[in-house]
Amino acid sequence: MREFTRDEIDYILEKAASLEIYARGERKSDMLAGRILANMFYEPSTRTRISFEVAMKRLGGDVINFSAEASSAVKGENLADTIRVVSSYCDVIALRHPKEGASRMASQFSSVPIINAGDGAGHHPTQTLLDLYTMKKEGKLHDLRIALVGDLKYARTVHSLAYALALYNASIFLVSPPSLRMPDEIKMDLMSAGAKIYETEDIQDVIDDINVLYVVRIQRERFPDPAEYMRVIGSYRITAELLKRNEEVIVMHPLPKTDEVEKAVDSMKQAKFFEQAFYGVPVRMAVLSILLAEWRKATTQSDSSF
Amino acid sequence: MREFTRDEIDYILEKAASLEIYARGERKSDMLAGRILANMFYEPSTRTRISFEVAMKRLGGDVINFSAEASSAVKGENLADTIRVVSSYCDVIALRHPKEGASRMASQFSSVPIINAGDGAGHHPTQTLLDLYTMKKEGKLHDLRIALVGDLKYARTVHSLAYALALYNASIFLVSPPSLRMPDEIKMDLMSAGAKIYETEDIQDVIDDINVLYVVRIQRERFPDPAEYMRVIGSYRITAELLKRNEEVIVMHPLPKTDEVEKAVDSMKQAKFFEQAFYGVPVRMAVLSILLAEWRKATTQSDSSF
Amino acid sequence: MREFTRDEIDYILEKAASLEIYARGERKSDMLAGRILANMFYEPSTRTRISFEVAMKRLGGDVINFSAEASSAVKGENLADTIRVVSSYCDVIALRHPKEGASRMASQFSSVPIINAGDGAGHHPTQTLLDLYTMKKEGKLHDLRIALVGDLKYARTVHSLAYALALYNASIFLVSPPSLRMPDEIKMDLMSAGAKIYETEDIQDVIDDINVLYVVRIQRERFPDPAEYMRVIGSYRITAELLKRNEEVIVMHPLPKTDEVEKAVDSMKQAKFFEQAFYGVPVRMAVLSILLAEWRKATTQSDSSF
Repeated sequence: MREFTRDEIDYILEKAASLEIYARGERKSDMLAGRILANMFYEPSTRTRISFEVAMKRLGGDVINFSAEASSAVKGENLADTIRVVSSYCDVIALRHPKEGASRMASQFSSVPIINAGDGAGHHPTQTLLDLYTMKKEGKLHDLRIALVGDLKYARTVHSLAYALALYNASIFLVSPPSLRMPDEIKMDLMSAGAKIYETEDIQDVIDDINVLYVVRIQRERFPDPAEYMRVIGSYRITAELLKRNEEVIVMHPLPKTDEVEKAVDSMKQAKFFEQAFYGVPVRMAVLSILLAEWRKATTQSDSSF
Repeated sequence: MREFTRDEIDYILEKAASLEIYARGERKSDMLAGRILANMFYEPSTRTRISFEVAMKRLGGDVINFSAEASSAVKGENLADTIRVVSSYCDVIALRHPKEGASRMASQFSSVPIINAGDGAGHHPTQTLLDLYTMKKEGKLHDLRIALVGDLKYARTVHSLAYALALYNASIFLVSPPSLRMPDEIKMDLMSAGAKIYETEDIQDVIDDINVLYVVRIQRERFPDPAEYMRVIGSYRITAELLKRNEEVIVMHPLPKTDEVEKAVDSMKQAKFFEQAFYGVPVRMAVLSILLAEWRKATTQSDSSF
Repeated sequence: MREFTRDEIDYILEKAASLEIYARGERKSDMLAGRILANMFYEPSTRTRISFEVAMKRLGGDVINFSAEASSAVKGENLADTIRVVSSYCDVIALRHPKEGASRMASQFSSVPIINAGDGAGHHPTQTLLDLYTMKKEGKLHDLRIALVGDLKYARTVHSLAYALALYNASIFLVSPPSLRMPDEIKMDLMSAGAKIYETEDIQDVIDDINVLYVVRIQRERFPDPAEYMRVIGSYRITAELLKRNEEVIVMHPLPKTDEVEKAVDSMKQAKFFEQAFYGVPVRMAVLSILLAEWRKATTQSDSSF
């Protein structure tokens, strides 16, 4: 995500907007007819895998699903060999892998483009793109005032999001328990990138002031003491009560959510997390069509041949 | 199943008959081109999942497969959230779930139609429809004389079938061991619905008198004593010997079958269980095309948009 | 594999060559539009399953995936019943099964053609065909001088390959540790089929003399003593050093490979195992198109109907 310029991000988001009508199934396309995406998922995933698959199919392409459980990974084949072979079978690969850097490594052995669909605690760029798309569609993207709430230490996809927001002149309110604060070096980086950073432990301090409330799951495993977890999750829970104080804010969450958002919030107009999940389809359509339709045309044919 | 009128059932069965040529792959269709079915199976299944997939693909549509093992269900996401998201990715959902009532609940959160593909011990309406279709194609549906043989207590899909048969003025012979008899309240209900009900413990009593022999698996787990299971299964086993007494009867079974049907029966002309399994394709084609082609036209566009 | 004549093999390989442009995604085809392949895999597989799926989809057909884990096999259904049902849902089946002879047995119950995609220690004919195709494309097939290196006792797919090579007048050098030598009866058979057979324990003896070096995995489980395994695998390892002695040889491997090929070999021009894996696509396209397009036309319509 950090290698994209703001112009490049804007281009992808505009492309996504133009494809949304296909994502909704309201119009048919054969833009990617004859093209094959390999979905290589070495970790379970619902939204990411399925939205890539839908994105490809709604544009007329086809998909090969490959999961670690039913594959040669169990026979001990290394990722480099698997990528070399699978890339000769398809036109683009979406790779989810538990190891950070797996996608970058895979791209060295692949004869087709690799889309990083999440590499462990590392990056998940299409998630960041769909987050930005949601803000743009459901509110605004420039001069945003956003609260990031929850685990800001380990949930590293939120770091990518924060860097991207810095490009758009955001004011970022970091709301987390002391033990899960965003690391200092990242805060420094964000400030040098132009973001305004504020930090607090209490969502009540900022609720009146923000356009977006972005909730990040706090994982039970981070707390050796279950009682401590319950106390923390309680303080960072998004409730209907809280949202009554700000009618204009939108609530986002990468999903799946568990206890950190009160059930009653689901049906409030501020809740945008289900729309956000849907926006994964047009955003992934944009990425796929840029790689397979535009980028292919612009490069020599040799890149996709064996 | 109990909410359908006889006219509605007849309509689906006629639709299925008109689509059978596509189900057999003898003619191609693009009736559902651009439409996506999400197959959400929280329990293993061969026939049901695959026949939904084939039904969709033979009509030109596409399918997203989603199984509980490889999904966010393992991260503890609730069904309501998963349905809200997946329904924004597709045009129709077929849901198999171990909990009774799961489909009804799911329909409250879905933006697209939910087809109940079996909810635990509850309902499995497309199974009942394909059973009725088999009777109509391979024999007759009106004034039928049918024996239901095996576990009539726990195998609740047979209750749905019995209710549907009552609409067609059936005479129903209940053949089961005493411990697995059909519950009294259901027998009462069937009689008020117009069915004639007879009860016996011995298949020999009725074999000469029936058009259809519908065999239901007796599950080993129902019997704490293995010897007792072996004795019971032996008495309710369908043998070639038995079928020699009635050349006209057709033998049906929802499959998979194990010991309750003698191997030699498979190749007898009375055996119709493999045809029955195939008929799942045209019947599911009928349901899909009614929901996606006819019903969509008849309602506002808003129902299928996010 | 042993039932094919050389003319039949040549026909399949020529067909594959004519389809390679579609396998590479450089041209689109709708040759198999409306046709459905059922991929029935009772064992995990990457290359075989996916290359069948790609072969079908690149020719415009569609695919139903069926794996043992998520199927009625867990409820104890027998293979014959599953095949009878699945064959009524599709136009062709690719079957991978742990039991030798499973495909032959399945073909007795299927209403559509069965392609053996590997039956345990038995046969795997499309693997042999793609091996032959690789030799033809990357070198030559007639009067070949080939070394088979590794486990020649248990790796039975190499026996099928050797029989096929005998048809092409090959000189075959068998290179294996004493405990993993090719069984005598097979050597006899190969010689009567016309192959010239030489046997050695050391790859150094033959490296200067051969066109093809075909490496077969030595399974750790064959050696009760880990130290013995390490010593053996070391002696039969293909290294960059070894390949410097013969610039013209091509190195083949059915994949997945582990320790038996040195990493540095991957990027040498002699290494052809990734091309070999890719050639699975055009070869399986050839088999599918012969079965579904040519063979269907030549037979009565009844063979593919229920």
